[in-house]
Amino acid sequence: MRVLDGGGVTSPEGYFAAGISCGIKKNGKKDLAIVCSEDISATAGVFTTNIVKGHSLQVTMEHLKSGYATAIVINSGNANACVGKRGYEDAKEIAKITAGLLECDIENILVGSTGVIGVPLQMDLIRPALEKLVENMSPDGGHDAAEAIMTTDLVAKEIAVEFEIQGKKVVIGGMAKGSGMIHPNMATMIGVITTDANISKSLLDKALKEVVKYTFNRVSVDGDTSICDMVILMANGMADNPAIIKEDKDYVKFKNALSYVCTDLSKKIARDGEGATKLVEIKVSGASTEEDAYKVASAIAKSPLVKTAIFGEDANWGRIITAAGYSGATFNPEKVDIYIGKLLVCKNGTAVEFDEAKAKSILQSKEIIITVKLNNGKFSDKIWTCDLSYDYVKINGSYRS
Amino acid sequence: MRVLDGGGVTSPEGYFAAGISCGIKKNGKKDLAIVCSEDISATAGVFTTNIVKGHSLQVTMEHLKSGYATAIVINSGNANACVGKRGYEDAKEIAKITAGLLECDIENILVGSTGVIGVPLQMDLIRPALEKLVENMSPDGGHDAAEAIMTTDLVAKEIAVEFEIQGKKVVIGGMAKGSGMIHPNMATMIGVITTDANISKSLLDKALKEVVKYTFNRVSVDGDTSICDMVILMANGMADNPAIIKEDKDYVKFKNALSYVCTDLSKKIARDGEGATKLVEIKVSGASTEEDAYKVASAIAKSPLVKTAIFGEDANWGRIITAAGYSGATFNPEKVDIYIGKLLVCKNGTAVEFDEAKAKSILQSKEIIITVKLNNGKFSDKIWTCDLSYDYVKINGSYRS
Repeated sequence: MRVLDGGGVTSPEGYFAAGISCGIKKNGKKDLAIVCSEDISATAGVFTTNIVKGHSLQVTMEHLKSGYATAIVINSGNANACVGKRGYEDAKEIAKITAGLLECDIENILVGSTGVIGVPLQMDLIRPALEKLVENMSPDGGHDAAEAIMTTDLVAKEIAVEFEIQGKKVVIGGMAKGSGMIHPNMATMIGVITTDANISKSLLDKALKEVVKYTFNRVSVDGDTSICDMVILMANGMADNPAIIKEDKDYVKFKNALSYVCTDLSKKIARDGEGATKLVEIKVSGASTEEDAYKVASAIAKSPLVKTAIFGEDANWGRIITAAGYSGATFNPEKVDIYIGKLLVCKNGTAVEFDEAKAKSILQSKEIIITVKLNNGKFSDKIWTCDLSYDYVKINGSYRS
Repeated sequence: MRVLDGGGVTSPEGYFAAGISCGIKKNGKKDLAIVCSEDISATAGVFTTNIVKGHSLQVTMEHLKSGYATAIVINSGNANACVGKRGYEDAKEIAKITAGLLECDIENILVGSTGVIGVPLQMDLIRPALEKLVENMSPDGGHDAAEAIMTTDLVAKEIAVEFEIQGKKVVIGGMAKGSGMIHPNMATMIGVITTDANISKSLLDKALKEVVKYTFNRVSVDGDTSICDMVILMANGMADNPAIIKEDKDYVKFKNALSYVCTDLSKKIARDGEGATKLVEIKVSGASTEEDAYKVASAIAKSPLVKTAIFGEDANWGRIITAAGYSGATFNPEKVDIYIGKLLVCKNGTAVEFDEAKAKSILQSKEIIITVKLNNGKFSDKIWTCDLSYDYVKINGSYRS
């Protein structure tokens, strides 16, 4: 498997994309994206578990019942959520206009929206822009699309990898946007993954579900699970590999490559979390159940006290063991070991003497691993998160203005 | 019932207190407190549910098995937690020395510690200071004690109320400290409540447990539940009222007064939360179960996105409904109404036109009520919290230094 330089959603065979500015974002930045496959694609989706759901997301869930899609249109700057019946109708209209332009069924168009909640979509801006969007589609348009789905993201998040299945070159590409209101709860932010692999719809669903669990569902920026989160995976089969129809070594190869793509995008989301200055990986091992490993990692990743200490480059491990203690997991506090990087700071639940200067230098790096060994069982988990800085407060103190 | 001017833990008959500086806090501020009753007191306690527990708290839980106490000694600046066997021995030694000075059993001395985790108690400073502490005790020492238990608190938190039971004047006083690592989980911060009421030990336990649930257990500053939290309620019976031994109208009067004291201290803790600029009350009604009402209130109170928006005085109600949606409670999003102050901002889960200037002016006040009506049942709840500001990040970025 090899990572493609500058790869993204248009790296696989037969995909076109575009990203343009239609005026939703007041600063003139791109705010309307499309990703389209030449052939209709088997498509899988994973959606937020928030019981409040954005209107565009609801239309996509409805359209995806068929299991196939031609294109997805995503706007940023407006979440199209909590605006009543009109929100559903607007999302439907975007799908209808796009279907007309692409000459396909309305059900084959998926729709996503991300941004401010409670403001009706600016359809007077979007309606006329859809034709231009479709006209702009190109096999090099992946980066524009990745830019057009950004909200508070500072960098576009993309990747593509190439591998072989029975002598045929197969590519998986992807893009995602963060960077706030992010916490695992069966789904995450907006992510679009494309592949030219030939794979059955049911295995596509299975692979996405399994991979998302340990990638996009292991990212926490602020503990808030959005109402517009979805990850869509399209597979158009144009790589012409013998179809993957059972869980054989080809499936494993595909799933590993998909996992690589989703892991990469997940880490990019955490690293670019709102106000983040550091990517933090919380590793938990030795839990007595799978659930307990997750609970401990999640509580630490969410703790504002842990996150501000990391921002302040302060090796305050007391906050780490405290978060573990209230996570709801069962373990013996007197068996817990905690490492900051490779530096042991707590052994058997008790402070150990450590070199504060060394701890500080570890915490000054851009990527930090915190390891919590519960020494209580065989289950482990990990979550990617970031620190909590002044800029998080700044960004979120006036998001709507 | 009447609130006593400048009242605190020494307002009830027969209580003495002191607060001195023994040198744990490097800035010379008070860091050692004692609250002592002339007569041995029936004493109730509620403790953190964090499975990691501070050593002083463990000693207090052990000593309180008898149900009676003479005094509680609390140090700030050091949590006496996660330092191994030594931590337990140090807490025991503080109790032993104090018992010697007060000529009582060691089991009648309770101990509390709050501050940095993982650093052994500075016993060389505490040991010689205990004699001075006891010498300094006076019936006017309540305020000094309240100051000596402060950590990042900006103001000492105290109150006392007076009421009558069968013609006898009864007083309840209290002090508490916040102001970070605070989230309900059956216990909270450190609080000491004193009363001269004559009440049976079992009713004292019952009253404290019931009152704490809707007062101290309804405060959230940052979602982190500390490992040193406890609320202690001492009753020495010196008011000489006919003993409260059943759940009659005298018990109700006592419980109402206790509730007033605990509510006042809880709101003071939220208002003085780390970096807080506003006290925020989250009211949830119309939930289909008691648990759901709590879940929704708690998720909103914890959400960094909601809290930063309030800091920024931005009426971003989309974040409020989002937090409700991921809280785990079951409700129909299309029936939810949200008010900021008395201003309706969301009706039936849908945006309503509202006066942004009016919303801004409501959010500029120091006390804000956010009401979420789920319109789904008959259960309600409320939580006090605060906004999330730059200063929270500043305070917690370098707590140990």
